[in-house]
Amino acid sequence: MKALVIADGSLSLEERPTPEPAADQVVVEVAGAGVNRADLLQVRGAYAAPPGWPEDVPGLEFSGTVAARGPGCRWIGDGDRVFGIAGGGAHATHLLVQESLCAPLPDGLDPVTAGGIPEVFVTAFDALVTQAHLKPGERVLIHGAGSGVGTAALQIVRAIGASSVGTARTPSKLERARELGLDAGVVASDDMAGAIGEVDVVLDLVGGDYLSIDTAVCRPRGRILIVGLLAGAEARLDMGTVLRKRLTVIGTVLRSRPEHEKAAAMADFARSVVPLLADGRLRPVIERIVPLDRAQEAYSFLHSNSTFGKVVLSAGG
Amino acid sequence: MKALVIADGSLSLEERPTPEPAADQVVVEVAGAGVNRADLLQVRGAYAAPPGWPEDVPGLEFSGTVAARGPGCRWIGDGDRVFGIAGGGAHATHLLVQESLCAPLPDGLDPVTAGGIPEVFVTAFDALVTQAHLKPGERVLIHGAGSGVGTAALQIVRAIGASSVGTARTPSKLERARELGLDAGVVASDDMAGAIGEVDVVLDLVGGDYLSIDTAVCRPRGRILIVGLLAGAEARLDMGTVLRKRLTVIGTVLRSRPEHEKAAAMADFARSVVPLLADGRLRPVIERIVPLDRAQEAYSFLHSNSTFGKVVLSAGG
Repeated sequence: MKALVIADGSLSLEERPTPEPAADQVVVEVAGAGVNRADLLQVRGAYAAPPGWPEDVPGLEFSGTVAARGPGCRWIGDGDRVFGIAGGGAHATHLLVQESLCAPLPDGLDPVTAGGIPEVFVTAFDALVTQAHLKPGERVLIHGAGSGVGTAALQIVRAIGASSVGTARTPSKLERARELGLDAGVVASDDMAGAIGEVDVVLDLVGGDYLSIDTAVCRPRGRILIVGLLAGAEARLDMGTVLRKRLTVIGTVLRSRPEHEKAAAMADFARSVVPLLADGRLRPVIERIVPLDRAQEAYSFLHSNSTFGKVVLSAGG
Repeated sequence: MKALVIADGSLSLEERPTPEPAADQVVVEVAGAGVNRADLLQVRGAYAAPPGWPEDVPGLEFSGTVAARGPGCRWIGDGDRVFGIAGGGAHATHLLVQESLCAPLPDGLDPVTAGGIPEVFVTAFDALVTQAHLKPGERVLIHGAGSGVGTAALQIVRAIGASSVGTARTPSKLERARELGLDAGVVASDDMAGAIGEVDVVLDLVGGDYLSIDTAVCRPRGRILIVGLLAGAEARLDMGTVLRKRLTVIGTVLRSRPEHEKAAAMADFARSVVPLLADGRLRPVIERIVPLDRAQEAYSFLHSNSTFGKVVLSAGG
């Protein structure tokens, strides 16, 4: 197999032995695999792989075909189309992964673009529904509405009967987000709280000083999910408002979770998100597909922050 | 009836018409009623009564005897011993309150001291168990372990099979807290994080810069409950730690909740806390009992921050 290997802060495609599955593992021949910000950090040496995953091959999500399976697998069959999440190693032609981190890929979905689905849809569904308990009729603020997680989140919000307001730094990203179902868009600025209005849930992919906007716009019992820290990891928290409104602030990350928690999130995804992908109510938002042997191009593009939706590597599988 | 009335920032005992209960209301002849910090703020004009409650009579908790009841009452009988919470009005000889905010007072409990039970035990149970989902075997940090809520919380922690570490500003408060079941005590200082060790849940009655200690000592998936802000309402939040450890920060307050939420908290209290009070595993911690006609003394004493546990007004009922 070929794998994208990190050495001294740069990437190269190298030949590696194709792994053999044991126990409940499968080997997936990868068709598509999304690029995520955690991959960029890992290349820079700023985000070590979680224990049990390849130290030098990035890639947190995949779509493809089951090439081999261990004797402890329960539902997966050779040749099955699957997609799912991993702690690393997906930017390769083959990936060794537990069956519990895979879900069946619905017929109508292209296996290359589907490689950009799991990370953002699992993250958004887990944050909005599993952790924030989003209900129909509630209103959600999405900071970074044009990002991969943002475009997944605004579709989930609409699909479950809630409404959304999104922020982005450019009107063009908001326009594209509206076409996907965003109800209201606000160009990011220091005094955007008034234009945002009141919300019940915040999905904050930006962090930094946005936290003060989050607490200001929340209604009583609002939930603020911190999913990204592009604007910084420190902020002032107005605890008086947090206490008076009885707000909840939750930090969340998928990559470092223990495998049983990743499996639980994937089970939720398979039950609640996959049917909505199968019937077209949710769809992947893919900005660009780049062949695995030109991966650096894909990484640089994501790093530019000019993407709308996902960047996916096609591995040819 | 006599009621403690706020006028121009001071308190006086005045004659008022005894109310008549309608619908699901009862009139309780008050035996004891705890003094809380919210009462001090209300006297200073800094904390208006919630809608539907007396604007000028403080008092958020009570114990006593049912003197009259409305036709919509379900379980309460004339002469029943009850205790419970209110949005105000309890610092009086008689209180008009909904049946749903009352619980039966167990036989073994003195009705005067029981007036100091509901606010702190409802707050601590609601925060630790209902909101933080505290489990046996987990470790809880209590900032302000000698306070009313602190002394209730450390007993609840022990009663449900968890363990506790508490902070206070004086060794003597920690010594008394240990006698009530606190497992470890740490005198408050800027560098107390190391002495505290790791915890799963924080009950923070202090606020301010304690928040940075809270995020530092939490294990992954820790829950931080902000219940008080004695040290200030603004703090820096290390969102990188919140995200990496997947922490939850929850602000909570009882007084301003809508009545149906107060009733839900009282139902939890009646089911889970009252039996533990009845069998002696939990007990009220009362620093001083002051007659209602010397209420100012009780208010000043609480304001001094030198109390351990509760200050209760005895109303003679």
